[in-house]
Amino acid sequence: MADEVLVGILGKGTVGGAFERLLTERAEMVAEVAGRRPKVTGVLGRKQGDFDEILAASDIIVELIGGTDDARTYVTRALREGRHVVTANKQLVAQHGDELVAAAKEGGAQLRFEAAVAGAIPVIRVVQESLGAIPIEKVFGIVNGTTNYILTEMSRAGLSYEQALAQAQELGYAEADPTDDVGGADAAAKMAILARLAFGAPVSLDDVAYEGIERITPDDLTYAKELGLSLKLLGVAERVGEKKISVRVFPCFLYPGHPLAPIEGPFNAVMVEAPAITEITMSGPGAGGPETASAVLGDVVSVIAGGSPLFEENSRLGIAKDVESAFYLHLEVEDRPGVLAKITQILGEAEVSVRSVVQKGMGDDARLVMVMHEVSEKRFDAALAKIAKLKFLRSPPRSIRVIEEEFV
Amino acid sequence: MADEVLVGILGKGTVGGAFERLLTERAEMVAEVAGRRPKVTGVLGRKQGDFDEILAASDIIVELIGGTDDARTYVTRALREGRHVVTANKQLVAQHGDELVAAAKEGGAQLRFEAAVAGAIPVIRVVQESLGAIPIEKVFGIVNGTTNYILTEMSRAGLSYEQALAQAQELGYAEADPTDDVGGADAAAKMAILARLAFGAPVSLDDVAYEGIERITPDDLTYAKELGLSLKLLGVAERVGEKKISVRVFPCFLYPGHPLAPIEGPFNAVMVEAPAITEITMSGPGAGGPETASAVLGDVVSVIAGGSPLFEENSRLGIAKDVESAFYLHLEVEDRPGVLAKITQILGEAEVSVRSVVQKGMGDDARLVMVMHEVSEKRFDAALAKIAKLKFLRSPPRSIRVIEEEFV
Repeated sequence: MADEVLVGILGKGTVGGAFERLLTERAEMVAEVAGRRPKVTGVLGRKQGDFDEILAASDIIVELIGGTDDARTYVTRALREGRHVVTANKQLVAQHGDELVAAAKEGGAQLRFEAAVAGAIPVIRVVQESLGAIPIEKVFGIVNGTTNYILTEMSRAGLSYEQALAQAQELGYAEADPTDDVGGADAAAKMAILARLAFGAPVSLDDVAYEGIERITPDDLTYAKELGLSLKLLGVAERVGEKKISVRVFPCFLYPGHPLAPIEGPFNAVMVEAPAITEITMSGPGAGGPETASAVLGDVVSVIAGGSPLFEENSRLGIAKDVESAFYLHLEVEDRPGVLAKITQILGEAEVSVRSVVQKGMGDDARLVMVMHEVSEKRFDAALAKIAKLKFLRSPPRSIRVIEEEFV
Repeated sequence: MADEVLVGILGKGTVGGAFERLLTERAEMVAEVAGRRPKVTGVLGRKQGDFDEILAASDIIVELIGGTDDARTYVTRALREGRHVVTANKQLVAQHGDELVAAAKEGGAQLRFEAAVAGAIPVIRVVQESLGAIPIEKVFGIVNGTTNYILTEMSRAGLSYEQALAQAQELGYAEADPTDDVGGADAAAKMAILARLAFGAPVSLDDVAYEGIERITPDDLTYAKELGLSLKLLGVAERVGEKKISVRVFPCFLYPGHPLAPIEGPFNAVMVEAPAITEITMSGPGAGGPETASAVLGDVVSVIAGGSPLFEENSRLGIAKDVESAFYLHLEVEDRPGVLAKITQILGEAEVSVRSVVQKGMGDDARLVMVMHEVSEKRFDAALAKIAKLKFLRSPPRSIRVIEEEFV
């Protein structure tokens, strides 16, 4: 009979429960592929179990509590005392990554967190292991299923943001308090983790500039359709020149043919670009109980099979402050001669180049929807501030980024 | 300074050269992420180097010779003598997998072969490690870039098979002798490897039923477009009931919205379906020199970092002989009353259910293009044999499989 490996589980929620069931059910298979049979030593719930006892009895600690209070204390202690840790806690890894890495080194333990990013899609493993020694240019994608579901429904069924959110909550794709998802904080934490791995830089959550989707209106999606665009909440981590990286989350239009354009509903998808591999795209369902439990099991199997994950910081890359983006601009203006001329003059002075314009009359007013080529965001913002002050504007200008690349 | 790890390279061709350059260029990065610095001990070319000397001097052997003669001897010896082996040789792994696994066990060595399947897409690692303990239902996809390029050009530009092949050869996407690619043997070898890993069964190349794309005509693609379908050469490995699996390669129509439908040109894409994860899709460029070299480097890094890949045979699943498929059927018939009635009668008797029909007159003749629902392939073949004997048929019936699932 195979030797046993002792696994302590922290957390008795949806994911904790799903993982305990999956581990028990698959114990035999784990023994076959990894050489040792996992045995649960204890499960820590709110009113059940004792952390010190579980820690003392375990080789591996699986943290599924969430949050950054108790989870931080438990995980740091476990690593320092030489227990391998598998966690699904993105906020913990994004906010306290440095501390966890230090604790793991101190204890000579492994830290794995595949389940923290992109549900069942093994993006952490791919970035960390397959591409561990390859210089990555860019990692980007749709890393929040809640917002992708909401945007899909707004576009597909013409729902308002509030209606689509309510529907997502009904179906369990959004939580009762959806702030972290719809405001972009959840995606920001995931992108901080991906950027840390892709660029070997100690990126923290504070380095990630993020926006959510709360301001998106059905109008934006209607005009986007006319222009052939689809709207996604994107996380983007990329090199900017030799010494800097940029990590951001923002709603963004994509042209048809872009590999992320067809990703709909609660799905996630991540693209990795590197000269050696051109690009690879991975997609799958976002984080649900079974998907997360399955990602955690993959990590547990790897810990048992031995071998350390490749997680090394090799360079202190700075965070770029100005980056280039293409923009969509939506203006409601008085319908009189000279309006378009004035706007294009301001854009021209800022060296913002216009790619396409759609103008529509609405009584005395007109709607102008413009798509710009890539430009320094600072320059675009300055031009936008000037446009916002024009007297013939009927409402504040609205802008959304656009990924300009076209794919064959 | 980090310890050295000694790497012997077999092969001086495109991939061998690209890998040697990449390894030298990235040696420092490998040392940082994996803990030891790789050093090339020797390169075996046709007229250069001595295998025994390289073997004696190396910790890791990277086999990039190709073929199953010398490569088989070298890899088996290296593994038996305890050297870890990384190979990109799909025919070697597909045809002699059992022997290699036995040699690796005997020598206590690792065998890794990410580069053998799907270019830069890390599908081996994902199936073997992330999903190592998860019961997989189905692995399928586009695993040959040459044929996907040809089919894309036939559909996009209306080229004949011969024209598209000539164009692929000009651009370097097809070899001078394209037999292995266009006939399906290359894809079959890759599917044998994927099936072995996904189902833990010792699948050999002989267990894979395969067809190529040589018989595909521009007509098939024209009618497909009318029906909203796109044509791909698919490799499919799936469970059939409790005790059997089926591993096949065949040209196949996909409905729009299928994640593989937008994969065009020389790209590859693989989907993995399992109850715990629903499905994940991975896509990227097929095997070129840099992509293959990069996949080999990922394996070398994993070997250096330690930990064994999970590669265990746990069950002797049988190969299913009859499976169900949906079909597209193209008939050229005399244009007279009763023809469609006769054909649908034969299909009805065989319990083949028709999903859609397009009929077009051409002078005295008519073309009938029908799409059938899923049915036992044996039953369909029997009906097809009856139809082929009908007097009013102008040319032999042509059938192509269809993946019926629709994706949202």
